Amino acid sequence: MNALDYFNARLEATISPMDYLRAEQTAPEQYFLIDVRNGPNHVRSLTIKGANIIPQQELAKRLHEIPKDKEIVVYCWDVWCNTAAKVATFLLERGYKVRELTGGIAAWREMNFPVTDTSSDIVQIDSCGC
Amino acid sequence: MNALDYFNARLEATISPMDYLRAEQTAPEQYFLIDVRNGPNHVRSLTIKGANIIPQQELAKRLHEIPKDKEIVVYCWDVWCNTAAKVATFLLERGYKVRELTGGIAAWREMNFPVTDTSSDIVQIDSCGC
Amino acid sequence: MNALDYFNARLEATISPMDYLRAEQTAPEQYFLIDVRNGPNHVRSLTIKGANIIPQQELAKRLHEIPKDKEIVVYCWDVWCNTAAKVATFLLERGYKVRELTGGIAAWREMNFPVTDTSSDIVQIDSCGC
Repeated sequence: MNALDYFNARLEATISPMDYLRAEQTAPEQYFLIDVRNGPNHVRSLTIKGANIIPQQELAKRLHEIPKDKEIVVYCWDVWCNTAAKVATFLLERGYKVRELTGGIAAWREMNFPVTDTSSDIVQIDSCGC
Repeated sequence: MNALDYFNARLEATISPMDYLRAEQTAPEQYFLIDVRNGPNHVRSLTIKGANIIPQQELAKRLHEIPKDKEIVVYCWDVWCNTAAKVATFLLERGYKVRELTGGIAAWREMNFPVTDTSSDIVQIDSCGC
Repeated sequence: MNALDYFNARLEATISPMDYLRAEQTAPEQYFLIDVRNGPNHVRSLTIKGANIIPQQELAKRLHEIPKDKEIVVYCWDVWCNTAAKVATFLLERGYKVRELTGGIAAWREMNFPVTDTSSDIVQIDSCGC
């Protein structure tokens, strides 16, 4: 495998926040976005707008909720999180068309792209004015 | 493909900020650094010192500006940006020798490596003293 | 190589902070964690708790310290650092079982996972209260 193979595979396997936002705005009916983060609800109450919440741990039993005719986009916490990659592998092996949203919720928030707060009493983490 | 193939491909396809800084200081004439970010000028006025500014959208028509005998290094915004990977693919397919600078401008700034501000009225984003 | 190959290779080659913390707590005797960062001691005095400090530059002559019967986990600074990937390649070529801890010390600290401060007079970098 050379550098070109590497880039082609990475580009086939992932989609950047900018590219997903544009793609979703252009043809929202073609995409099915999944927040696959595990962990207690209150730490993941802030989600990408429009995301379907299917934690990795519930994936196998909720597989019927995922459409086979759409492009599945999965995300977790950050670039160093492997949960989305695990879900992508699981779904690709079952014939779904899947890409990972690079950077997860962290990159999405840093871009100030639209999010949904599913909790009314969430504590803001970034409150120092940066 | 196993783990070793993965690391070899990644190391062939990318160069870290530290490694690029050292390489460029040792043999500046061997490298041609390109800032491939798209978007309005004012949001990308801070660039890596010495970078050639060729936004991805202008690449095809400005291909003649890129030397075939140098090692091309491309960068965009951050680790989750795919623009540099797209440009790398485009150039590799045309026989250029290319690597992606990992982490883009974000990693470079976090390392406090030398940058150029092409705008005199740029608004500083990180102004909280962190 | 397709997207599935890419994810499988990445998952075989890397381990996330969350997964490593859990794995290490479950079976600490199975893992051998190495901090492979180069550079002056004072800038890398904060290390992951339990890590063996073997800078990449000393690796070849200290190879005998690394057990062949454990799973080796290597880390460096951040997602954009390639030092851990270089060490992983070096060790994989010699028959070791190796994975890279994604995000390095930066991701580990952001997760507030346990660290050791080997210097009593370390200057805190993140002191703005963010």
